[in-house]
Order: sequence, then C-alpha cells, then structure tokens
Amino acid sequence: MELKGIAEILEGLEETIIFKLIDRAQFHRNMVVYQSGESGFKGAGNTSLFKLRLLYHERMDAEFGRFMVPEERPFNTNLPKAKRIVHLPPNDLKIIDYNKVNLTAEIKESYLKLIPLICPKGDDGQYGSSVEHDVYALQAISRRIHFGAFFVAECKYRDNMDEYDCYIEKKDDSELLEKLTRTEVEENICKRVRQKVIHSQRKINKRIRNLIEPEVVISFYRDTIIPLTKRGELIYLLNRKK
Amino acid sequence: MELKGIAEILEGLEETIIFKLIDRAQFHRNMVVYQSGESGFKGAGNTSLFKLRLLYHERMDAEFGRFMVPEERPFNTNLPKAKRIVHLPPNDLKIIDYNKVNLTAEIKESYLKLIPLICPKGDDGQYGSSVEHDVYALQAISRRIHFGAFFVAECKYRDNMDEYDCYIEKKDDSELLEKLTRTEVEENICKRVRQKVIHSQRKINKRIRNLIEPEVVISFYRDTIIPLTKRGELIYLLNRKK
Repeated sequence: MELKGIAEILEGLEETIIFKLIDRAQFHRNMVVYQSGESGFKGAGNTSLFKLRLLYHERMDAEFGRFMVPEERPFNTNLPKAKRIVHLPPNDLKIIDYNKVNLTAEIKESYLKLIPLICPKGDDGQYGSSVEHDVYALQAISRRIHFGAFFVAECKYRDNMDEYDCYIEKKDDSELLEKLTRTEVEENICKRVRQKVIHSQRKINKRIRNLIEPEVVISFYRDTIIPLTKRGELIYLLNRKK
Repeated sequence: MELKGIAEILEGLEETIIFKLIDRAQFHRNMVVYQSGESGFKGAGNTSLFKLRLLYHERMDAEFGRFMVPEERPFNTNLPKAKRIVHLPPNDLKIIDYNKVNLTAEIKESYLKLIPLICPKGDDGQYGSSVEHDVYALQAISRRIHFGAFFVAECKYRDNMDEYDCYIEKKDDSELLEKLTRTEVEENICKRVRQKVIHSQRKINKRIRNLIEPEVVISFYRDTIIPLTKRGELIYLLNRKK
C-alpha cells in the first residue's frame, strides 16, 4: 500500500486503455448502435445495441465474480449474483460498500463523446464489433478510474491523516480536491500517454488501419480520466470508515 | 474480391492479435483456470474456468449474431440462435455451410501451448481476467485464420480456376497445399509481425508491464496461424460449390 506501487499499476493500465481505443477506432462511428429503439434485437424494447451489449456482458461478468473486485464497478444495476467464489488478496480499503464509489454513468457519458473523435465518420455495418469493443474500452477506462479512486485515496489519506481528517470532518469538497491534486503528476501522465499513443502506432500501415490522435487521448485523460479519478478519491474519503 | 485487398485486411488484424496477446501476458499463467473440475463455478461440473468463460461468451455472441459472419466460427456447438438480424454485405463465397471450415479446435490447442511462452510463471490469483483475455485473444486469432481461409482461397481459385479445378477433382491435398503456398508472402508476414511486436512495446516500462518476445509471436504465426489458414483454404476449396 504505497503510492509509488499504486501509481505504477495505474501506469500499466495506460497501454490497455490505448490498445482498446485503437481497436474500437478500426470501426466506423456507427451511431445507430447508440440509438434507443434501434437495437434490432427481438423483444428488446426501447434500448440501444450498445446498452444491450453492455448489459449482457456485465451479466456474464457478474456470474464470473468480476464485481467482487473493488476497482470493477458495474455500469448496470440488478446484475446476477456471482456463481463462483473469488479469492481476493486482502486489501486495506476502509469502505464497506464499494459501490458507493461508482462513476460509471459519468464514464459512459464521456466515452460516448469520444467516439466521434477516434472513429472515422459514417457507418460500415460492423455494429456487433463496434459495441463489443466499446465494452472492452469502457471496462479498461473504468478499471483505471476506480482503481485510482480507491487505492490512491487510501494511500494519500494514510500519508497525511490529520489534515485529511480535518477536511473530511468539514466535508469541504473543494479543499479536499485541492489537497488530492498533484499537478506535476498529472502533467507527467499526459506526457507519457502521448508517447505511448505515438509509439503504439508507429509501425501501423495507414492505408489499412485507422490511427487515433495522441491529442484526443490526452484530452480524454485530462478532462475525464484524471478528474473522475479525483472525484472518486473524494467520494471514497467522504465514505471512509474510521 | 482481390487478393491484395484481402491481404491488407489480414495485415490489419495483426495489431489486434498482438495487442490481445500483450494484454493476456499481463497476468500470470494461472494454469488452474485450464484444469477440468477446477472452475469453482456452482453446478458447472467437470469443466474448467477457461472453457466456461469461452462458452458463456460465445452464447452471448451467438445471440448478437456474431456467427452469421463467415470468418467468425464458434469454438462451441449448440449455441443459441441470433436475436437480431445481421445485415451482411454480400460476399462471393461459394459455400453453403460456413462451419465446414472450422479450425477452432486446432486454434485452441495451439493457443494453450502459447500461454506458458508469453505469461510469467506461477499464479497471481487473477483468474477472471486471465480467461477474459484468453477469449479476446482466441477470437482475434480465429478471425484472422478463418478470414484468410475463406477469402484468400476464393481469390486464389478465381485467379487460376482450371488448375485448381483439376486438383480439387483429384482431391489431391498435397498438390493443392503446395499450390496455395506462397513462401515469400509468408516470410514477409513474419518480418512485419516481428517489427510490430517490437514497436508496440517500445515505450513500455518493463518494471511495470510484462513484455512478450517477438520470436514467440513469429513462431506462432509460422507454426499455427499460417498453416491453419492454408488448411482452411484447402477445406474451403474441397467444399466449394460450383
């Protein structure tokens, strides 16, 4: 439970997020998959193919025990119970209900705004593949945000208990957020992510595969991943049990 | 329906395979997930967690219509029917039952031998994530092999109908395989894959993420992906309708 180790795990998740965004970008925007009532699914009612895929995938994941893990927060509610016992390594989190920290609604909203920025315009008919890769990308982003929210917050708290206790008692969100912010670290993340996006695509044949712009991924880190992680840290601290 | 276009699609799938192998390699071998009777799933009987995940995933995929697409061949049988109508672009394949060309048993067998070559020794307890990424990798590999099998074979046939008809009539497997082989193309694929594996991992922090060896991926291409694609081409031609 050291900040350095936690930061390294977050760093290791960067490639996974980048790879999954690149994979999604191989398909067109296919906006129809996000339209309610257009799922084409028998008996599915007024949902979208995207929502349906996310629901089916999470139902499967729930049975496999995914959401027993703190950093895996579900996008859906009313999921089935796990059919297997997940043996988790003990963690030092001080929260009873992990789902108190669940930023999936905000993640989904931001992710859907990212689609037109990484995928080519138009419709290639590859609806199944598009929503399949949406789910993979969303889960990778969500894992990073929630892992940071829980474990970075707990670490920072331990490193400076008295000061955090004071803000927590006052429920002073803005002071807490300021305390949680490390501008230099955030800038380093963005620099590193830029390099990774460039290098992951260096040998790609542009006639064959679509590239994603480093700047788009940086903005997503700057405007979504980093702020939502901090918001999760805040929520964690406000719900932390003594 | 030109060989050059088909080859480019196959080339574009290389990154997807490489990315998914790298993602799997972030988890230990976790050999228990491949052991029958050790799934830990309530009421699952004598199966493994890996087989169970592949089955659940394919049941979901089947409902979403995945296996309506020629290059998406299922690893399991008795899957549910599609719940949506998949509007496919017309193709020029001359085969009625796509599943005549289904090399998933061989793909699975070779893939399981690859695991100890890309994943660190031992057990990290991340069983759910391991089998999740196994499914993603298997599906990417299978798509590449079956896409090649169907479309490369049809293209090659069209470019040289009389000669192929002669071998097909004689059911001469070895002459057909020889005719389908283009050694120079195969060597180029291996060279290109090596470059891609190296460059995809160039900016990776080795203390944090596990790397995969280019040579291991090349061998998998040379000994599994390329020969199984050709075997699929052969099966396609022997089942091709006039």
